[in-house]
Amino acid sequence: MAADLPVSPLAPDRFPDLPEIAGVRFAAGAAGVRYAGRDDVMLAVLAPGTAVAGVFTRSATRSAPVLDCQSKIGGDNSGAAAILVNSGNANAFTGRHGLASVAAITGAVSDVTGVPQARVFTASTGVIGEPLPHDRILARLADLNDALAADAVESAARAIMTTDTFPKGASQQVEIGGKTVTIAGFAKGSGMIAPDMATMLVYIFTDAAAEQTYLQRLLGNLTKRSFNCITVDSDTSTSDSLMLCATGASGVDVTGHADFEQALRTVMLDLAHQVVRDGEGATKFVTIAVTGAANDGDAKTHAMAIANSPLVKTAIAGEDPNWGRVVMAIGKSGAAADRDLLSIRFGDILVAEQGWVSPDYREEDAAAHMRGDEVQITVDLGLGDGSATVWTCDLTHAYIDINADYRS
Amino acid sequence: MAADLPVSPLAPDRFPDLPEIAGVRFAAGAAGVRYAGRDDVMLAVLAPGTAVAGVFTRSATRSAPVLDCQSKIGGDNSGAAAILVNSGNANAFTGRHGLASVAAITGAVSDVTGVPQARVFTASTGVIGEPLPHDRILARLADLNDALAADAVESAARAIMTTDTFPKGASQQVEIGGKTVTIAGFAKGSGMIAPDMATMLVYIFTDAAAEQTYLQRLLGNLTKRSFNCITVDSDTSTSDSLMLCATGASGVDVTGHADFEQALRTVMLDLAHQVVRDGEGATKFVTIAVTGAANDGDAKTHAMAIANSPLVKTAIAGEDPNWGRVVMAIGKSGAAADRDLLSIRFGDILVAEQGWVSPDYREEDAAAHMRGDEVQITVDLGLGDGSATVWTCDLTHAYIDINADYRS
Repeated sequence: MAADLPVSPLAPDRFPDLPEIAGVRFAAGAAGVRYAGRDDVMLAVLAPGTAVAGVFTRSATRSAPVLDCQSKIGGDNSGAAAILVNSGNANAFTGRHGLASVAAITGAVSDVTGVPQARVFTASTGVIGEPLPHDRILARLADLNDALAADAVESAARAIMTTDTFPKGASQQVEIGGKTVTIAGFAKGSGMIAPDMATMLVYIFTDAAAEQTYLQRLLGNLTKRSFNCITVDSDTSTSDSLMLCATGASGVDVTGHADFEQALRTVMLDLAHQVVRDGEGATKFVTIAVTGAANDGDAKTHAMAIANSPLVKTAIAGEDPNWGRVVMAIGKSGAAADRDLLSIRFGDILVAEQGWVSPDYREEDAAAHMRGDEVQITVDLGLGDGSATVWTCDLTHAYIDINADYRS
Repeated sequence: MAADLPVSPLAPDRFPDLPEIAGVRFAAGAAGVRYAGRDDVMLAVLAPGTAVAGVFTRSATRSAPVLDCQSKIGGDNSGAAAILVNSGNANAFTGRHGLASVAAITGAVSDVTGVPQARVFTASTGVIGEPLPHDRILARLADLNDALAADAVESAARAIMTTDTFPKGASQQVEIGGKTVTIAGFAKGSGMIAPDMATMLVYIFTDAAAEQTYLQRLLGNLTKRSFNCITVDSDTSTSDSLMLCATGASGVDVTGHADFEQALRTVMLDLAHQVVRDGEGATKFVTIAVTGAANDGDAKTHAMAIANSPLVKTAIAGEDPNWGRVVMAIGKSGAAADRDLLSIRFGDILVAEQGWVSPDYREEDAAAHMRGDEVQITVDLGLGDGSATVWTCDLTHAYIDINADYRS
């Protein structure tokens, strides 16, 4: 349970001061779905005309809320929109009961808020395979609706946490045509993190104006180099959902605008890194950069093989510059590599080149780098121009404590 | 270090009484490659005419001894043959120094034993990326040659151990045409176990007669359903080597004989299971059977996704029948699955069917199964006739202790 875990040593000092987004209001409350004594449900209501884009898990066993959201993305944008998220229960692998819960929640949210049901999106995160006691959520909806406020984003970010040890928020502002466009979002995620298409639960809001089709394409592209490049434990969730909601309240059409894309990318990468920093049991934030691969796909395959290797992750936990295990991970990945062209760096320290340890390498230098909170492993394959960077954390006793506990 | 680790709770009571194989002699000795106070080198010498088949890792960063063996398999069979193995140093990622060490060792073994150098096979297992001090091995060769004996198999099996906590042996005898054919072998392996093509170090000997080409094909086929179906930590070694040596001393040609194939399969599966039972930190031996897949390949993909999931493995360590994580692993595997056709059993207990928990399921029944040393997870996908069975162990604190220690 989140309440029992110490805050990650890699956590930011505090939740950031997120700017309000015109056209977006939040509320959070305690429905008692599973957790006692904390908020576990959040409602966001978005102004009429808000364009909603979404990217979701590709899991073959994806949850009922994910299936419902996927069927709604890309529909008529004219009405208001709403997002309701609960923590404590994932409503995944719950058969027809799962779909019935989604229908009950989206119908009731529509009744209370006046938002069309086809524009009510939900997500559920927590234990898999248990029926969602959705009546507890319905009982809170009127209070949530009354409490909606533009400045309630932190309580919304906290309400969707499960094994997270801190809430995750990020924002950017850009000037476009003399006007300010604001982006702000939050995320939850700590374990079962190896996104494939989207990831975890992430909600990003902006007052920019843009066509839904543009936002959808942009979100998919940026996901490939942000959320889809992180891994905590190689396990992909059934509930991964990433949504971007553009209210248009700024009056600025950002379609195709590079500054907006860069700002959105910054927010997404910031949130993705915060998820890694809250990786279950994490004590090190690890960046793995692969260059010189035959192509970008091969580079990512190698980077993920290193990032997901239990032997690499335990070596990092032990502050051991065990580059032999990096060689092993490259060898097993299945992507092209030539042992005698490899070079490997830990931080700025050249460890190995041309198939063997560098003549100037001193293990104490690499060991000093490993003792920091931030570990950088760089591999050059010497084959071509392909590159990729991924982010992960170490594998520690705390990961096992969190996950071997009875039904954590 | 192996000496410091308690023996796996899943270990057999003792090393089996392996029958001698006519035409095969062993010796073991202490060369001090890395470990002090224990044997770390073994020599096997095989009678002239012995057919030698081998299957090796497909790692792109495979070791110098593996490359040398691969170049020699399938060559002229007429002379005697020899196998020299050291533990403590893998001679992997050691560049031209690695090849020079192999040349020095195979040349010296040839000089001492009279076996042609082209029939001297070597393997090295242990730390990656450090030069092999092969002079220490050469200094022991004369004594090893003098000590060769047909009954020294257990000391040979012990000499090749690294983080293994027990030596692994298995044998079978079959009657063919009124004569007895004997098969005996041994293996080492405990971590970095996710074989791809072959696995770890495994040596199997038989007095059967057969063409090398037949043995090679048979060994490859049987590997697919034995060593290639086990995983400890999803990490594939740079040194995996499996060799089968048929001396022909029984005078029985076993080519194409089903009883021989079944006996060899039994020996290989026994050794493969012993490697899992000695998986680093293992407290549970886990069998994962997938049926009803679209094809056998999909079944194995699903089974391996379950077997390699850190969340499934930690749940098993915690004796938690957390079938939701099994659903997650199936969903992420990438192979075909339909959530609403899935059924899942823990032992004999039907946990889930048709996309949800079974109405008769009582968690205390599944929890009782999880408390045993042997856990069986069976998944039926309801799609077709594809099936696969794989074997793994749980993920415990001891795995992290073993691998997060400085350069274990």
